[in-house]
Amino acid sequence: MTEKRTEIASLGEFGLIDRISTTAALRQPSSLRGIGDDAAVIDAGEEVMLLSTDLLMEGIHFNLAYMPLQHLGYKAVAVNVSDIAAMNGRPEQIIVGLGLSNRFSVEAVDMLYKGIQAACENYKVDLVGGDTTASPSGLMISISVLGRAKKGHEVYRSGAKDKDIICVTGDLGAAYIGLQLLEREREVFLADPNMQPQLEKHEYPVRRQLKPEARMDIIYELAELGIQPTAMIDVSDGLASELFHLSKNSNVGVRVFEDKLPIDEEVYTTAVELKLDPITCALNGGEDYELLFTIRQNDFEKIKNHADIHFIGYVHPDPKQNVLITKNANVVPLKAQGWEHF
Amino acid sequence: MTEKRTEIASLGEFGLIDRISTTAALRQPSSLRGIGDDAAVIDAGEEVMLLSTDLLMEGIHFNLAYMPLQHLGYKAVAVNVSDIAAMNGRPEQIIVGLGLSNRFSVEAVDMLYKGIQAACENYKVDLVGGDTTASPSGLMISISVLGRAKKGHEVYRSGAKDKDIICVTGDLGAAYIGLQLLEREREVFLADPNMQPQLEKHEYPVRRQLKPEARMDIIYELAELGIQPTAMIDVSDGLASELFHLSKNSNVGVRVFEDKLPIDEEVYTTAVELKLDPITCALNGGEDYELLFTIRQNDFEKIKNHADIHFIGYVHPDPKQNVLITKNANVVPLKAQGWEHF
Repeated sequence: MTEKRTEIASLGEFGLIDRISTTAALRQPSSLRGIGDDAAVIDAGEEVMLLSTDLLMEGIHFNLAYMPLQHLGYKAVAVNVSDIAAMNGRPEQIIVGLGLSNRFSVEAVDMLYKGIQAACENYKVDLVGGDTTASPSGLMISISVLGRAKKGHEVYRSGAKDKDIICVTGDLGAAYIGLQLLEREREVFLADPNMQPQLEKHEYPVRRQLKPEARMDIIYELAELGIQPTAMIDVSDGLASELFHLSKNSNVGVRVFEDKLPIDEEVYTTAVELKLDPITCALNGGEDYELLFTIRQNDFEKIKNHADIHFIGYVHPDPKQNVLITKNANVVPLKAQGWEHF
Repeated sequence: MTEKRTEIASLGEFGLIDRISTTAALRQPSSLRGIGDDAAVIDAGEEVMLLSTDLLMEGIHFNLAYMPLQHLGYKAVAVNVSDIAAMNGRPEQIIVGLGLSNRFSVEAVDMLYKGIQAACENYKVDLVGGDTTASPSGLMISISVLGRAKKGHEVYRSGAKDKDIICVTGDLGAAYIGLQLLEREREVFLADPNMQPQLEKHEYPVRRQLKPEARMDIIYELAELGIQPTAMIDVSDGLASELFHLSKNSNVGVRVFEDKLPIDEEVYTTAVELKLDPITCALNGGEDYELLFTIRQNDFEKIKNHADIHFIGYVHPDPKQNVLITKNANVVPLKAQGWEHF
């Protein structure tokens, strides 16, 4: 073959998305925002519709050796809902595409849908359609979600301004530690199938990996408090990676304080036990599905005592300076590893 | 294992969809119609939004041995647009989920998107988002489409009434014959790689298989003529299968005339050459993506001379009698084979 061949890995997922988005012209007046945020934004009169999609592939995103099908169904919905939350919207409908190899039985599909239905109930989302087909190998779940916001209330990655306060919900790194624990137990099991998994004492990080929640609770609370974030994104690839997205899209820089990063105590000690740096886990772990957002300084008073919102830094004007301020007051450049599947 | 195991094949794709839809309660007032039609219907003030999704899996829906990536991209969009057409809506946005194994290069992805973009231009649809991930094996394309119709102008499978006229666009069976030709050539090639494919004289059926079109032209024409079909569905699984859907959803029966089934002359002779019954191909071939719809008798005058709409039968009140009237005036029960992927 004399044809040019460029490996996808040389571009990476974000490079590939950039390449695709440059060719995606918007012709429809109803397309208010296309590729490049957590969801597309579609005009619908006094409201906007928010549309997003996420794929979960067996062997890439999950391992059925430790992922119960019910949790998988729940997670597939939650990660989509999280994209709508990240736009400050409310999810209303999902459609589910399912590719099933013949090793899956009707009972297995029932378990998967039990999880999907549980998430639908929890997030008040309706399952309104889908497509089901055979798959030559493994399980593939593709969910698309439709959400809604009042026009002008949707929040983009691009609105962060100088001096805004950077907030993050919940805690970080737990889902990543959960994954390490599950992988370790699987290896122990493979070496000796008589070994019982020892995961009881690590219930929290394991749950964060297997059954993450979208932070719709925060979206409802912010609306009640009258706070509209200036920019927002959900933490799916890791905090550092998401901070870079905010920086790039808002054309600003971020200064983040190491000692403000929220890390669960059990997660911290488990990380050390696993010989992992807890700060690196918090910065690059991914799959936490917490919300990262910026607010005007004026809004700080309204949420400064919120138990589950943490103020980790602030925005400054130079988009080239994205830094971490360490406990020793050293200023070091932020580094994003993210999750590269290619 | 003592757990009960039911094979998915024992339910089939439609059985599986029925099973899922019974558990899918609609809680959101905006969910006007959920699972069970060509698209979900979502309230948006004076309009409705239409949402649908289709999966295309390598090894199940296409074979890259004869499916050029550019055509595949085009087809993936067209089959989704066809679902919106079947609701009497206009497509506006798509989002694309892509699973890529490492045998795909950036250049291959570019070809795929070239086809996706060509379809977007043709159908005036915007590509507004997506998700791209690695795949453990093969190529998977999941497209979701968002369309729109004036409220009350959307057309369901359930509106056919006694004495309505059954119409179908274009011609039937060509895509199926195209597939047989491609499979035959592939076998010849596998047996002797020096053989050149002989497909030039079969350009029409091969194109119908590789690059089908959604009949948006018919939707625009019907709107101009002031005709709103009483029921509609697109022919993806085969005419007979779609007629059964109309019958079931509208609680009526259909009488279809064998000699009215539109079959392209070349397709007819090629079917005979391949020792296939052309009528069976037209009834059960599938993948034609033509529109099957019913109209009130009052509307017949407006389209009776339309070159590309064929009047193949009529609706009667008994949902248990779905029949084909043969050329010899024999009345035989309709049989649907459809496309079962499981």
